[in-house]
Amino acid sequence: MEVCDWGDVPVGWRRRHLLGLEDMSAGEIELILDQAERFRLILMRGASYESCNRKIPLLSGKTCVNLFFENSTRTKTSFSLAARRLGMDVVDFSASTSSLSKGETFIDTVKNLEAMQVDVIVVRHSCPGTAMLLSENIRGHVLNAGDGAHEHPTQALLDILTIRQRFGKVAGLTVALVGDIAHSRTARSNIWGLRALGANVILCGPSTLVSRQWEALGVKVSYSLDAILDQVDVFNLLRIQFERQVIRPFPSTREYAHLYGMDAARLAKAKTDVLIIAPGPINRGLEVTPDVADGQHSAILDQVTNGVAIRMATLWMCINVKPEN
Amino acid sequence: MEVCDWGDVPVGWRRRHLLGLEDMSAGEIELILDQAERFRLILMRGASYESCNRKIPLLSGKTCVNLFFENSTRTKTSFSLAARRLGMDVVDFSASTSSLSKGETFIDTVKNLEAMQVDVIVVRHSCPGTAMLLSENIRGHVLNAGDGAHEHPTQALLDILTIRQRFGKVAGLTVALVGDIAHSRTARSNIWGLRALGANVILCGPSTLVSRQWEALGVKVSYSLDAILDQVDVFNLLRIQFERQVIRPFPSTREYAHLYGMDAARLAKAKTDVLIIAPGPINRGLEVTPDVADGQHSAILDQVTNGVAIRMATLWMCINVKPEN
Amino acid sequence: MEVCDWGDVPVGWRRRHLLGLEDMSAGEIELILDQAERFRLILMRGASYESCNRKIPLLSGKTCVNLFFENSTRTKTSFSLAARRLGMDVVDFSASTSSLSKGETFIDTVKNLEAMQVDVIVVRHSCPGTAMLLSENIRGHVLNAGDGAHEHPTQALLDILTIRQRFGKVAGLTVALVGDIAHSRTARSNIWGLRALGANVILCGPSTLVSRQWEALGVKVSYSLDAILDQVDVFNLLRIQFERQVIRPFPSTREYAHLYGMDAARLAKAKTDVLIIAPGPINRGLEVTPDVADGQHSAILDQVTNGVAIRMATLWMCINVKPEN
Repeated sequence: MEVCDWGDVPVGWRRRHLLGLEDMSAGEIELILDQAERFRLILMRGASYESCNRKIPLLSGKTCVNLFFENSTRTKTSFSLAARRLGMDVVDFSASTSSLSKGETFIDTVKNLEAMQVDVIVVRHSCPGTAMLLSENIRGHVLNAGDGAHEHPTQALLDILTIRQRFGKVAGLTVALVGDIAHSRTARSNIWGLRALGANVILCGPSTLVSRQWEALGVKVSYSLDAILDQVDVFNLLRIQFERQVIRPFPSTREYAHLYGMDAARLAKAKTDVLIIAPGPINRGLEVTPDVADGQHSAILDQVTNGVAIRMATLWMCINVKPEN
Repeated sequence: MEVCDWGDVPVGWRRRHLLGLEDMSAGEIELILDQAERFRLILMRGASYESCNRKIPLLSGKTCVNLFFENSTRTKTSFSLAARRLGMDVVDFSASTSSLSKGETFIDTVKNLEAMQVDVIVVRHSCPGTAMLLSENIRGHVLNAGDGAHEHPTQALLDILTIRQRFGKVAGLTVALVGDIAHSRTARSNIWGLRALGANVILCGPSTLVSRQWEALGVKVSYSLDAILDQVDVFNLLRIQFERQVIRPFPSTREYAHLYGMDAARLAKAKTDVLIIAPGPINRGLEVTPDVADGQHSAILDQVTNGVAIRMATLWMCINVKPEN
Repeated sequence: MEVCDWGDVPVGWRRRHLLGLEDMSAGEIELILDQAERFRLILMRGASYESCNRKIPLLSGKTCVNLFFENSTRTKTSFSLAARRLGMDVVDFSASTSSLSKGETFIDTVKNLEAMQVDVIVVRHSCPGTAMLLSENIRGHVLNAGDGAHEHPTQALLDILTIRQRFGKVAGLTVALVGDIAHSRTARSNIWGLRALGANVILCGPSTLVSRQWEALGVKVSYSLDAILDQVDVFNLLRIQFERQVIRPFPSTREYAHLYGMDAARLAKAKTDVLIIAPGPINRGLEVTPDVADGQHSAILDQVTNGVAIRMATLWMCINVKPEN
């Protein structure tokens, strides 16, 4: 492996944990995006024939635990690959087979992991605030991989990185988050991150999923996708999360697709350089038609690559932050 | 770790994927077997006390994803060990907890894995053609770990390697595949591989499991194991796959063992240097009696070791194949 | 990584397997504790900011298989971390998805793992004697991670290491094992290890869980925790294992806590330097109150760290033992 001399984490970075974007400054977000761009270059280099190594063992000897209390293959795999690309050992701690089912408290489970001298815990839990609770109870580093409907900061960061790559900036752009805002931690993290960087945010969806109360966060609310088509630079098509919904928020998926699905006809009325992103997994034919998902305006797969880069950046920056900062 | 100078993959190898043996030439199969022999030497070297290292990090920095949609500990563990011995990082992508259960299409799941910049996908799926479908949709490398009742190429290659080790050749030998041909991807891959290398193949089992139509592949069909005992150099005792059978293909396991089980009495009537192999997991007392399974004619455990060597060989050769070839 | 010159395993160590403490001499136990102390120093060194590496790749290139037939996140994670810290590759072999469900025998499954050239198998099984059965059937090394209610040697070794760290010795101390002795493999291993090192052992609990027959092992039996409070140097508060109990051994958890739970009132009557340990996962408010579990007499989290060190020591010593010894 190559000699690693990436030096210190960027000046100005002082966080030991990545809990959310709500209180993060534009400067901090830009530090993460810049670092992720550097890691992305390594991720993308070379075809497999060339004997090139896409690993950069900056965190060799460190251990990362994936503590996932909700099913997630995509995010967990992305974090695992990011950690291994940095040379870390990764251990999955499956909640279903864990001591929690034997009556142990959450904090005791976590303190046990800490006592095994792990360096970082990546946590996903259905309860908002889990990542923060964890960070207040252990000496190690905590990265939030989603806490209830609260925050999912790495998802928002990869969305924002994808936007910045396409437009070269984020400030001044108009970004529409379309669909299931009510159940979406991704929406919350995106709103805070995009607002910090100076973007305009429009929330768009049926009134059962988008409340006027969101306007308090400095965003606009629209109940008509057609009405905003020509004002928007980026459409972020949130997943309809059937698995999170207690009551049916719209009469049928056919009606949802008709009113809020992105298709070729709507795309034709949008700006010529409009960007389509989606956190996935996508429901083809519901939030987005296949031709749009696979078309030239879509950056859905770029987002996935950026996800690994964002997770490499935040792992490295949180673990290598200077003490006392 | 030792310095790795294994040079290029063998001249004549031009495949990026290992999908099956149906269209593979004798020369290509021999290249894989020869390479596997070299890796086997490393696998087998030294007792554990000697501070010898059985790892050869030719694929260090590469990432392998195990994408298994059917339960398999044996084959998945063998691939995992092979990949790690070559220095790869291995990530298991469990189908049951994956986004597929959230409505994502198979190709979308795979394209997401690809976008995370993984190098090779090892895939098992109940649907024939899955590995080929995959190979046509991603830039990375695909190794087929079993697709429905179609092909299971690494199993056939390890069977054939075991035969070649014992007899020094394959051409001219008579190999009987005994038992559940109808449900066996292993049988198909074996037939194509053995025929390419010049072996004679006899399929033997009850008529409910062995159709005369197989003769179109250049093999003989026999419904009596006793009738072929003295003609056969290698008996490959296929597993009765109760888990794949919809209807009961024979009246009782007792009758099956009576007619098609390999036991000491039958072994006594076979050639003196006859070889017994079985893909496993074996049903002791059904396809084979314990004394035969554990006896001197059996190479059942050699097959398992050869399995790791074959998987190392095919991983290395597919990943390091020269572009444009 | 640093150059590893840890030389040979300690003179006097001659075991290829760690099956239990019943037949282990004081000298052998001390060798393990001493080695674990050395590994613990590496585990504990440095905060994460310092670019220090807590890995010591003495077993690089070796492969460890976790063969767990009972759910265990804590012990399995501890073994995995220990093996990886020593540079090993770790493969989990999940019993639920294994070939055992396809009718393969236990020994055949294990012989298959062996044929894949793995170096060590860490096994947990509900059947007493599993680890020994395994050790008699394979060439590799076996570490017992719990066999039924028989032995759990690494748990006892980490308990004893924690005691020795606090008191500087074990001989002459009085250690009380409190609670569910009947279902506890940890109790058996502790009794043999503590007795070998010259400690006095008292078993304490309700008569449904503690039989007078235990006295044959050279221990005392008490049915009153209050009666022994001032005689004991170490209380090891065993978990009430609801998941192992067929009949209810006491009227209510409230009664159990009242009679056998360790709380501040009892602690006040104990020796001033009394040590509280518990194998966990603890039932807060049952075996121990939160204030005691988290108080200054408790070494519950030290035990967890010691667990990784003990597993590193036993892995390294068993794998590197000299042949013919």
